[in-house]
Amino acid sequence: MFRSRFNRTVAVVAVSTGLALSANAQTSNGKNAPLMIQEQGSFAVGGKVITNPGTFNPKQPTPDGQTLHGDHAYVSYEIPVNRRKLPLVFLHGTGQFSKTWETTPDGREGFQTIFLRRRFPVYLIDQPRRGDAGRGTVSATINATPDEQMWFDTFRVGIWPDYFPGVQFSKDPDALNQYFRQMTPNVGAYDPKVISDACAALFDKIGPAIFVTHSQGGGLGWATTLKTANIKGIVAYEPGSGFLFPEGEVPPPLPSAGGTLEAIGIPKSEFLKLTKIPIIIYYGDFIPEKPIDNPGQDGWRVRLEMARKWRDTVNHYGGHVTVIHLPEVGIHGNTHFPFSDLNNQQVADLMSKFLKENALD
Amino acid sequence: MFRSRFNRTVAVVAVSTGLALSANAQTSNGKNAPLMIQEQGSFAVGGKVITNPGTFNPKQPTPDGQTLHGDHAYVSYEIPVNRRKLPLVFLHGTGQFSKTWETTPDGREGFQTIFLRRRFPVYLIDQPRRGDAGRGTVSATINATPDEQMWFDTFRVGIWPDYFPGVQFSKDPDALNQYFRQMTPNVGAYDPKVISDACAALFDKIGPAIFVTHSQGGGLGWATTLKTANIKGIVAYEPGSGFLFPEGEVPPPLPSAGGTLEAIGIPKSEFLKLTKIPIIIYYGDFIPEKPIDNPGQDGWRVRLEMARKWRDTVNHYGGHVTVIHLPEVGIHGNTHFPFSDLNNQQVADLMSKFLKENALD
Repeated sequence: MFRSRFNRTVAVVAVSTGLALSANAQTSNGKNAPLMIQEQGSFAVGGKVITNPGTFNPKQPTPDGQTLHGDHAYVSYEIPVNRRKLPLVFLHGTGQFSKTWETTPDGREGFQTIFLRRRFPVYLIDQPRRGDAGRGTVSATINATPDEQMWFDTFRVGIWPDYFPGVQFSKDPDALNQYFRQMTPNVGAYDPKVISDACAALFDKIGPAIFVTHSQGGGLGWATTLKTANIKGIVAYEPGSGFLFPEGEVPPPLPSAGGTLEAIGIPKSEFLKLTKIPIIIYYGDFIPEKPIDNPGQDGWRVRLEMARKWRDTVNHYGGHVTVIHLPEVGIHGNTHFPFSDLNNQQVADLMSKFLKENALD
Repeated sequence: MFRSRFNRTVAVVAVSTGLALSANAQTSNGKNAPLMIQEQGSFAVGGKVITNPGTFNPKQPTPDGQTLHGDHAYVSYEIPVNRRKLPLVFLHGTGQFSKTWETTPDGREGFQTIFLRRRFPVYLIDQPRRGDAGRGTVSATINATPDEQMWFDTFRVGIWPDYFPGVQFSKDPDALNQYFRQMTPNVGAYDPKVISDACAALFDKIGPAIFVTHSQGGGLGWATTLKTANIKGIVAYEPGSGFLFPEGEVPPPLPSAGGTLEAIGIPKSEFLKLTKIPIIIYYGDFIPEKPIDNPGQDGWRVRLEMARKWRDTVNHYGGHVTVIHLPEVGIHGNTHFPFSDLNNQQVADLMSKFLKENALD
């Protein structure tokens, strides 16, 4: 029941009846109907507290005896009227924050609002030491190093300064301006344990939900699944690292022009937790089948290869992992950010189909 | 017409008729009606681009020839159905981000949602080099230095570990946990010019609007007013610095146990721009009338004094500045964050009254 079948043409997902249809749906003339939000807000979750020795003196304050609350995730949420049961929890990838899921670089609705219209409660994470969760328990040095042409290539928009032919990314210069400005640095060392701890605390707080991850967030999604029973399904867009295998069954590192990808071994008893839920993984276009000397593209060749090895291993132990390379199901031109590409409604329909087929909607 | 009169009891602001009343108002039984949102999203605005010399080589990327887009503000927004004409643009203060205006530390609706219910489009800023606008054009070092007891005192919640008697702040330990976690560091040097440039770019983009500022944001509000014609009114909660006077009329520095407050001189032709719009300034409770040796409280004594001098000078040149010390109008117990204190509906009613009296609603 967990495996999805895909047609070349993905059917538009019908939104069910009543109030939410008139209020939250996108109307047929392309104008958006109002969103009806039952509740919205934000909070910090997880994290820790460090305390300096000594005694605080209010009249002459020094760090003595003071505390620092840090390493939490920051979460904003919206719960629509007539909500579906399971919320979607969205986690960004490398160098990104909640913006990944918000308004697209060219100004259209992102998955945050698309899936609100489809009546899912939506939670957006800024991971610990990133964006609005910038208060960490460790000090940091941040270098303002120009690197955007590298990201343009690594995110498979094209090979700078050229866009890939047929790429699902607006050629409007302001779209690229917005795209570059949705990067934000690590404020403190990247620490997968700190992040997955905070994400697990979120699922423990809000109850059963679906985890939607991007890129580096993919590996954090698997790691979080080991720490909470409340992840009921995972949708991973272009997971880039952190693939977990049973100790003794870890595949060899995969070299590419973009670096060598290593998998991680964990005890099999832990690994088996990954076999209990439906997981779908999507990769976009412009991923070479054989090694090429462009590091921006070639790194994705081995990530896709590792994802398939991981699928096979999880499913060998009774799991329910599907890997979809979008061009193979007739969806072309997607970058590393399929959910904000020009065809993101189609990409959302595919995700809705997965959720429906696995009774997660 | 710009001056407000205040009664001890602030009348509840009536929300006008029709759909928005039923959809966005708070119902009389205390349960919140759904929010009806016509449009929501986020974007970067302002900022600059730095470019490294050299040529980018996609096959062996180095910083050569690459760009960095930084120093923008990050803005999220919601526009309600049946919107009022002028949006509210909210700017946080020192060490804070958009969270200042979102869910309160004890979990109630903040000004973001309260004023959406009152049918204002709401824009929330993360200023350049802060929070989700963390991508700066300068490098930075961030020290994880415990300092929260100092903030507890400076924000006038109490004198650590004691709460002020009657303070409008929840004693629930989780409220304090959330409060401390809404701090986030500067990611790059604090630069008022960079921030007011980005804020002015926002007003130039969205058109006429009202600026609602907090603390350090107050001075940035005056500075932004010099750079855009689209600020039609200012509501400043507890402005802490950046008071602008005509050159030659700058008052002497004001010493306090919390440091010495200096005003800033600007050309009179620039200063006169501040006389053209209605401005209201609110300060909360627990501000001493005479010098005391507690720096957390005493700094606010001179900020309130400077605000009154500034009011007198702006109004001397035909301006429309009102300073409200909340205890003087019968509103007691407020901290440095009146808009998220336990009585924030009452504080919001006062702001609505100012907007109405100045035809800004």
